[in-house]
Amino acid sequence: MRDIFLRACKGEKTTPVPVWFMRQAGRYLPEYQEIRGKADFLTMCKTPELAAEVTLQPVDILGVDAAILFSDILIPLEAMGAGLSFKEGKGPIISPPVRSRKELERLHTIEPERDVPFVLETIKILRKELSERVPLIGFAGAPFTMATYLIEGGTTKSFVNIKKMLFSDPALFRSVMELITEVTISYLSAQIEAGVQAIQLFDTWAGVLTRHDFRDAALVYARRIFNALRTRGVPMIYFVYDGGHLLDLTRLAGSDVIGLDWRTDIETALKVLGKDVVVQGNLDPCLLFLEEERLRDRISEIIQQGLGAKAHIFNLGHGVLPEIPPEKVRLAIEMIHELSS
Amino acid sequence: MRDIFLRACKGEKTTPVPVWFMRQAGRYLPEYQEIRGKADFLTMCKTPELAAEVTLQPVDILGVDAAILFSDILIPLEAMGAGLSFKEGKGPIISPPVRSRKELERLHTIEPERDVPFVLETIKILRKELSERVPLIGFAGAPFTMATYLIEGGTTKSFVNIKKMLFSDPALFRSVMELITEVTISYLSAQIEAGVQAIQLFDTWAGVLTRHDFRDAALVYARRIFNALRTRGVPMIYFVYDGGHLLDLTRLAGSDVIGLDWRTDIETALKVLGKDVVVQGNLDPCLLFLEEERLRDRISEIIQQGLGAKAHIFNLGHGVLPEIPPEKVRLAIEMIHELSS
Repeated sequence: MRDIFLRACKGEKTTPVPVWFMRQAGRYLPEYQEIRGKADFLTMCKTPELAAEVTLQPVDILGVDAAILFSDILIPLEAMGAGLSFKEGKGPIISPPVRSRKELERLHTIEPERDVPFVLETIKILRKELSERVPLIGFAGAPFTMATYLIEGGTTKSFVNIKKMLFSDPALFRSVMELITEVTISYLSAQIEAGVQAIQLFDTWAGVLTRHDFRDAALVYARRIFNALRTRGVPMIYFVYDGGHLLDLTRLAGSDVIGLDWRTDIETALKVLGKDVVVQGNLDPCLLFLEEERLRDRISEIIQQGLGAKAHIFNLGHGVLPEIPPEKVRLAIEMIHELSS
Repeated sequence: MRDIFLRACKGEKTTPVPVWFMRQAGRYLPEYQEIRGKADFLTMCKTPELAAEVTLQPVDILGVDAAILFSDILIPLEAMGAGLSFKEGKGPIISPPVRSRKELERLHTIEPERDVPFVLETIKILRKELSERVPLIGFAGAPFTMATYLIEGGTTKSFVNIKKMLFSDPALFRSVMELITEVTISYLSAQIEAGVQAIQLFDTWAGVLTRHDFRDAALVYARRIFNALRTRGVPMIYFVYDGGHLLDLTRLAGSDVIGLDWRTDIETALKVLGKDVVVQGNLDPCLLFLEEERLRDRISEIIQQGLGAKAHIFNLGHGVLPEIPPEKVRLAIEMIHELSS
């Protein structure tokens, strides 16, 4: 197996650096669109053969060094009893949103084998298909991010409902977070038992918190998850999107790897994190619009900065956008391998 | 006149610290809603008597130390020839968006007396009404932020259209920015001539840029504006929302005051900015949901941290949200004055 991703997670400087891209299985690929034309998004997530097929596409087409399970971070919320739907072009909707203890009490913990069997089945198919090729990454949303969807009822610009609960009813907020944390531990444990070889915890929205509030409202729960999973022996990545002001704190969560979005360059991040850390990132996905020579310069800059860390896994600072031409994504992967060899 | 705001802008530590809140004239006030019930948002902006009335409301009701002109940052885009409308609950729409040189060529520079006379008239009314009370702040959107609306055609989550232009057609991007910069200089010059006593440049979206790209795509244009207005003798504030990773660079723009959103606390910001700087900020607007005693603690913490700067103007880290009870906003203003006296 091509194991540079797992070796880098463990702190080894590899040649070349491993690369995978968030949302590498996604709408920018015509091969993905072809399957998506036949099934809606949730059906794709819940049909192991389809989910496995789109997970494998970027491994075949792009030559990435890791596959990431195709799924949606909101799947466990639905398994907990929340109503989940997707409206074309509007993102996910959780209905009704949870804003009272009564609404919270309608939700329950999960038994992954009973509640999300399709995820575990997808992982088993993928491990068979991938065995001689690249490792498989599992993932979940971090508790603050999951709570945002649950309490806001979808995406939000102001985060007013979750922050209102956090600040005006902290006891209820804690109950929401405790439940989600417990579910996330079960969910990721089951993914690991089914065969994922690394996990990433996505804290997409915790970057809207002050340092003060991040500690109490996000970090403690993320840390609890990493502590619970540590003995499982798979590398763990913590990615706080737009979390440049929180870097020193994110390190306290106890993951093996710190994911960086594109805003803070690796050199600046390492001044805060120290050099004894494995970092993952961090090309602005929109830089894939650059013409080849300028793209090469920007990729090269990130690889150079990554040499300052204990080890570096190349990634985008956020997911691949549907507007990016797939041949440009493939070219970027090639360049990353070439420039770090 | 109560001049603590202007004195703090010039670097004087005042007792108490001055306070005003972004969007202090807004939907959370029943007095504002009453006027809004009679006229749509753009009509309010364009009717000097109504715009002046809502500008004065927070001065009367809250006891803030500065008034800020009630207007919308997109007004100059409409004056340049762009189609501007607001859909209830959906934010502003610029139609058609500018994505080609042909679309750019339909736009033109502005003559404020001809193209935005209502803004200048509002300022004149306000200076009469405010003369013995508090100073009046004028404002504009910074060029990168204005270009985002122009190119995206409204708000966006991915910034894919503006970044696509920036990275794949930098010459066209520069032409857009040159035009907006010229317009913004005319617009702010006219506001100053009409009587505003300070100005704030809002760079709401530049925080989505890497440090590398912020320099080329936002900072150079903001700096050109501050350079052009420096001899006018009014204090100038530069506010880059979500710009914690850009703080050292924002200082290079040449404003007198650096606005901070809530994410980066003032103590951390001053480590990057140095102590010889006037800062404005930075309470998370959602902290106004806290009960009184905990709110007092958080306000007190910000005032303490502000003492480390050359001078401090208290503000929120973003605008007042419609969901906040007005009595809580008034209470916060009182606490800020009391705790810094």
